[in-house]
Amino acid sequence: MFKNTVVIPFFICVLFMSFNSHAQEHPKLILTTEGVQKIRAELGNVPLFDATLAMVKAEVDAEIVLGIDTPIPKDFSGGYTHSRHKLNFQTLQKAGVLYQILEDEKYAVYIKDMLFQYEAMYKDLPVHPQTRSYARGKLFWQCLNDSNWLVYVSQAYDCVYDYLSKKERKQLEKNLFRPFADFISIDNPQFYNRVHNHSTWGNAAVGMIGLVMDDDDLIQRALYGIEDDGLPVGAKDNDGGFIKTEGQEVGFLANVDEPFSPDGYYTEGPYYQRYAMYPFLIFAEALHNVRPEYKIFAHKDSVLLKSVNVLVNLSDADGDFFPLNDGQKGMSYKSPDVVTALDIAYHYGGHNPQLLSIAKEQGRVLLDDSGLAVAIGIRDGKAESFQKKSINLSDGTNGDQGGVGILRYGDEEMTLVYKYAAQGLSHGHYDKLSFSLYEKGTEILQDYGLARFVNIEQKGGGNYLKENKTWAKQTIAHNTLVQNETSHFGGKYEVGSKHHSELYFFDTSNPEVQVVSAKEINAYPGTEMHRTLALIKADNFEKPYLLDILKVESNTENQYDLPFYFKGQIMKTNFDVTAPTTLTTFGSDNGYQHLWLEAIGAPKEENTKLSWLENGHFYTLSTATTNKDELNFVRIGANDPDFNLRRDAGLVVRRKKSKNTTFVSILESHGHYSPVSEFSVNSNSIISKLEIMIDTKAYTAALIQTKSTGDKLMLILANEDSASDIEHVLKINEKDYSWKGPYAFIKIK
Amino acid sequence: MFKNTVVIPFFICVLFMSFNSHAQEHPKLILTTEGVQKIRAELGNVPLFDATLAMVKAEVDAEIVLGIDTPIPKDFSGGYTHSRHKLNFQTLQKAGVLYQILEDEKYAVYIKDMLFQYEAMYKDLPVHPQTRSYARGKLFWQCLNDSNWLVYVSQAYDCVYDYLSKKERKQLEKNLFRPFADFISIDNPQFYNRVHNHSTWGNAAVGMIGLVMDDDDLIQRALYGIEDDGLPVGAKDNDGGFIKTEGQEVGFLANVDEPFSPDGYYTEGPYYQRYAMYPFLIFAEALHNVRPEYKIFAHKDSVLLKSVNVLVNLSDADGDFFPLNDGQKGMSYKSPDVVTALDIAYHYGGHNPQLLSIAKEQGRVLLDDSGLAVAIGIRDGKAESFQKKSINLSDGTNGDQGGVGILRYGDEEMTLVYKYAAQGLSHGHYDKLSFSLYEKGTEILQDYGLARFVNIEQKGGGNYLKENKTWAKQTIAHNTLVQNETSHFGGKYEVGSKHHSELYFFDTSNPEVQVVSAKEINAYPGTEMHRTLALIKADNFEKPYLLDILKVESNTENQYDLPFYFKGQIMKTNFDVTAPTTLTTFGSDNGYQHLWLEAIGAPKEENTKLSWLENGHFYTLSTATTNKDELNFVRIGANDPDFNLRRDAGLVVRRKKSKNTTFVSILESHGHYSPVSEFSVNSNSIISKLEIMIDTKAYTAALIQTKSTGDKLMLILANEDSASDIEHVLKINEKDYSWKGPYAFIKIK
Repeated sequence: MFKNTVVIPFFICVLFMSFNSHAQEHPKLILTTEGVQKIRAELGNVPLFDATLAMVKAEVDAEIVLGIDTPIPKDFSGGYTHSRHKLNFQTLQKAGVLYQILEDEKYAVYIKDMLFQYEAMYKDLPVHPQTRSYARGKLFWQCLNDSNWLVYVSQAYDCVYDYLSKKERKQLEKNLFRPFADFISIDNPQFYNRVHNHSTWGNAAVGMIGLVMDDDDLIQRALYGIEDDGLPVGAKDNDGGFIKTEGQEVGFLANVDEPFSPDGYYTEGPYYQRYAMYPFLIFAEALHNVRPEYKIFAHKDSVLLKSVNVLVNLSDADGDFFPLNDGQKGMSYKSPDVVTALDIAYHYGGHNPQLLSIAKEQGRVLLDDSGLAVAIGIRDGKAESFQKKSINLSDGTNGDQGGVGILRYGDEEMTLVYKYAAQGLSHGHYDKLSFSLYEKGTEILQDYGLARFVNIEQKGGGNYLKENKTWAKQTIAHNTLVQNETSHFGGKYEVGSKHHSELYFFDTSNPEVQVVSAKEINAYPGTEMHRTLALIKADNFEKPYLLDILKVESNTENQYDLPFYFKGQIMKTNFDVTAPTTLTTFGSDNGYQHLWLEAIGAPKEENTKLSWLENGHFYTLSTATTNKDELNFVRIGANDPDFNLRRDAGLVVRRKKSKNTTFVSILESHGHYSPVSEFSVNSNSIISKLEIMIDTKAYTAALIQTKSTGDKLMLILANEDSASDIEHVLKINEKDYSWKGPYAFIKIK
Repeated sequence: MFKNTVVIPFFICVLFMSFNSHAQEHPKLILTTEGVQKIRAELGNVPLFDATLAMVKAEVDAEIVLGIDTPIPKDFSGGYTHSRHKLNFQTLQKAGVLYQILEDEKYAVYIKDMLFQYEAMYKDLPVHPQTRSYARGKLFWQCLNDSNWLVYVSQAYDCVYDYLSKKERKQLEKNLFRPFADFISIDNPQFYNRVHNHSTWGNAAVGMIGLVMDDDDLIQRALYGIEDDGLPVGAKDNDGGFIKTEGQEVGFLANVDEPFSPDGYYTEGPYYQRYAMYPFLIFAEALHNVRPEYKIFAHKDSVLLKSVNVLVNLSDADGDFFPLNDGQKGMSYKSPDVVTALDIAYHYGGHNPQLLSIAKEQGRVLLDDSGLAVAIGIRDGKAESFQKKSINLSDGTNGDQGGVGILRYGDEEMTLVYKYAAQGLSHGHYDKLSFSLYEKGTEILQDYGLARFVNIEQKGGGNYLKENKTWAKQTIAHNTLVQNETSHFGGKYEVGSKHHSELYFFDTSNPEVQVVSAKEINAYPGTEMHRTLALIKADNFEKPYLLDILKVESNTENQYDLPFYFKGQIMKTNFDVTAPTTLTTFGSDNGYQHLWLEAIGAPKEENTKLSWLENGHFYTLSTATTNKDELNFVRIGANDPDFNLRRDAGLVVRRKKSKNTTFVSILESHGHYSPVSEFSVNSNSIISKLEIMIDTKAYTAALIQTKSTGDKLMLILANEDSASDIEHVLKINEKDYSWKGPYAFIKIK
């Protein structure tokens, strides 16, 4: 067939294809007959595409030499059978692409042989022997990984569809693909019929094989789910997430509609958004190619395309995703999942030249029409630097369930990530109004992330560790307020899922004073938290600093703990520290049992100061404290006999027996130190005073004074109305201040 | 004068200079009149030189704009007055060079003005107010830094010598330079008249100003010290080092003769060698230029030139020096001191093209004849890659006081640093037979280094912290044997200084099996330690592994502790671990008081295994243990209220009530993990068994068996005679083995 095709003159070829666009020859799913022609014509002329092709060819050729192995499933993630089947489906997909592009039959033979090995095995394959999952797969310990398999393998099948005889296809479809699709859907509705990244994979898997087989039943099942799943409302999975809620829409379209906010934020957070991007975008591309009438890329105001931009914005200067909720640190937009998403978003989303600079960093492209478009764009010098900016991302289907605010200064010199979102499904953490802070790609005040070593078999089979629940999800593991040593919503998923924080205001109109402010009233019933974070670049500071105002109002007397998890080596405190000769835990439950109380201090001055050195930079945390406050140095790692946790440090400011109170702090980055030059520059904080000038129900004002110049700066917040057109007048120290809107930033003479 | 010079035809110029080579016009010290001509002629044609010049010009011009400040001395290192005077002397030196090369009078004016400010201040300047040093300076808290000042400023003075009037010179010499030189020498013999890096700086300072002033008295004092110093034998400095020992030679030549071994190893270790390199080489260059009759570069078989090569070899793959003894981690051959040393060694040491590749990494050159030669070499494409190899470096004046053995595999894929040296003067640690291991530039088993934050004022004025003595110098802080919880030599400098370990053999003739072996009989009287370390690259291992055989023989029953300080996250142990609910210290003294006992385990199998993940690689330590051994997980940081120590981890194998025993361990690097791909490859050790086959007074044999192939490898050591021509025959398990020399490495069928 290929031989014929290549000698048909181009115009006939185009004609032929346009006449046949509904009959649809194969490949049609991701690669298209037309696209393949174009790719072949460009081979050797598009450096990044050619390089990727060479790399993929080398990988697949090496696998072909090693021979096919489809072992009887046995292991968890990280174990041999798991890794082998994972590598198999990746190799099959790549081999399919190589067969189409290079027209070398050996790739088709390899695919055919392996598919028939799977066919022979699958017929009688029982459910996977590992029992941990709420939805066990057959090839893998969970249906999720089986779905991964089918998403990739349906692409390979599409590429060799015409190479196989009708009889061969019938055999594969009858014994392998159709039962496979049924198993992960009809036989496992608790996995398939949800709004969850698991189901997205399941839906895409069923839909993609349906598109290749032209099976309308499967396609409808993919898009809209199973009608009568027989699932009880309120059932939960083994991560503790809800399987079914009342009136839940299901299927792929529901999975696009619900977890994405109109801004394109995915409620589970960027780590899982990255994971889900592959099935979202690859199935969307397939649907666009085979069933364009669904206009999938335009769905919900083009949210799938939009979400790729959002995902890039949810990364630090190195491209690593912010580890909101369950997120493994180090995962970045260089992940293959994001290569797919980005190329597709570029190709079908209007050729945004800024995406090309990210593609350059990724260093590879998809081997399809979209990857070719990206590689051509780069070759033709169209790449523009991606401008990450301060951005406010709403959460929730309709964008009304809180969100995530990101403040950035300069070229990511300083980045604040502030979470005032919804629960984030089963991967959510109990950390309302928490934040993390970055200087370029370095974490200054960190979010712990998850307690898991994904795919590392030694660590609990590569799955979630129990410390994810006992530590990582707990409130004390985050830079936010803990009341009476309990987590937000009592650490209860059912309760947390009902609520979300509320944005008070987000204002980045002045790049020198960027402010985000939000409130939380449900985490602790009877207690209201209002946290405002401002990234301020003042004249005599080398870098912007972070001002943190956390106002708490409660009906009852409580103990408040406010942690700051820093990294690096402590340089100095302005208070006396006592280091105990035996270490005890900081508490007994809700994550406190995992903290050693390493040292204890009491404030000596009105401002408590802690300085440290990290990655060649000095940092100082200044906090307005009272002489009743306790300063607790904690270290993670207690009650951790398996060494599942990192031994990171935190300072917890404890305020006992308080009803209403306000915590005001500043985090400053200053100076630098190099062990090569041994020069220590600006190693001291230049803030001489941080003071709460006024703190009423209606207004809170914080004064910042600097050492060298004595400059005084004041941020005043209107606490009760964030409308931008309201005029405020306030007397502080016998002086009248007036302004419009929720805040004023004033330089005092 | 410059105007005239530039119009003189070149041959006349050369003639003029050759006639005047003894009268010696200025500059003559580092820059020479001839050299300056050559530099000017090449300007614009030598990229690295031009780039350095532009950088230096930018630095100096910025300082000139800021204006001159010579504050009254007040602070420790890191404080303002300290940093200011340090920056001043560096800027003066640079301005001198710029004046000569660029012929712009503004630089001469700047130097002159600043010198006269110093002259006005110095006349009546009391000794520095900070009292901590055993030899307080005037501008700085210690004479050492005053000497730094004079070494740099004498270069500046030389550059403007002819610019100044005779009267001006007289005033400066009378009120500033001569009293300055006398103060750091005659007034402070306890600083000046020693063999120590401090004295090297002092000697160089006096010598360099003597050469500029043509003052023979000072030159002789520099080279040979002060004749009658009136110092008592046995006096000590504030680091605990000896000031005077019986029959001690002093002065610059003694400082070259004594601390350098014939191989070019500097007994204090690479961190201090780097520090001393500047005065050693810069004064040598000056002496070579002004008094060539001393043939300083040929002195002691060209040890100064040789030592530069050694210094490069004492670094990891990133160029960071091994932190033997007191060494601050992160210091590297990119330090300006090493730029100086390397350029001079290149120029006066036969233009070794391998040094040019290091110079490229340094990215700058000296602005003198030697730097020009380096920059020209690089421009002309002469650079060759520096080949760091396995190397054995003897310690001691005559090379007979032990040494340091470095085993390297491949392109620094794995590097072992084994210390069996002498005490290393006052900066020595009590760590006989200790080692550290690197994979490329990553520490796998670490040497702690020092407990100090050099020049960071907040940390004890940037000076040595008390934890340097209570922790960093103690034996338990190192990867070597501790007997009965006491340090080697009882942690006594006087005792340690009398002894050194002895090399048993060093054999790197087979790159696949490289071995270094040494003995220590004085650290614990009555106990002999014999440690053999082998870097072995076996067929079915992806990387070389380290085999560690430590044989201990004692007259008495003891408790032995063998620590391994690892980094990264623990993945797995093959033994049960109990994590206490309160933490206590591992002991009460000799460094033990700084260790928390984080968890305790007992061996479950004949081999104890601990795996961890660091920097994307998996590591496993396998140790042959008995069921009486205790496995202690320790963490540094107890009794450290000032947070002066890093919270690093170690595993301490404890063997109680033993006289003679042998510890055999293997450190393997295997596989990798990426948080982007989330693929975990070869995460398990492939060693199935590590067994001591025989262990007699005469022979020790360790067997290594591998999991996948069952291959058996055996290393047999002859313990009593390391002669390479001796034939050995030994029966193990009814089988005879025969070989020649101290060890055999055998593959068993």
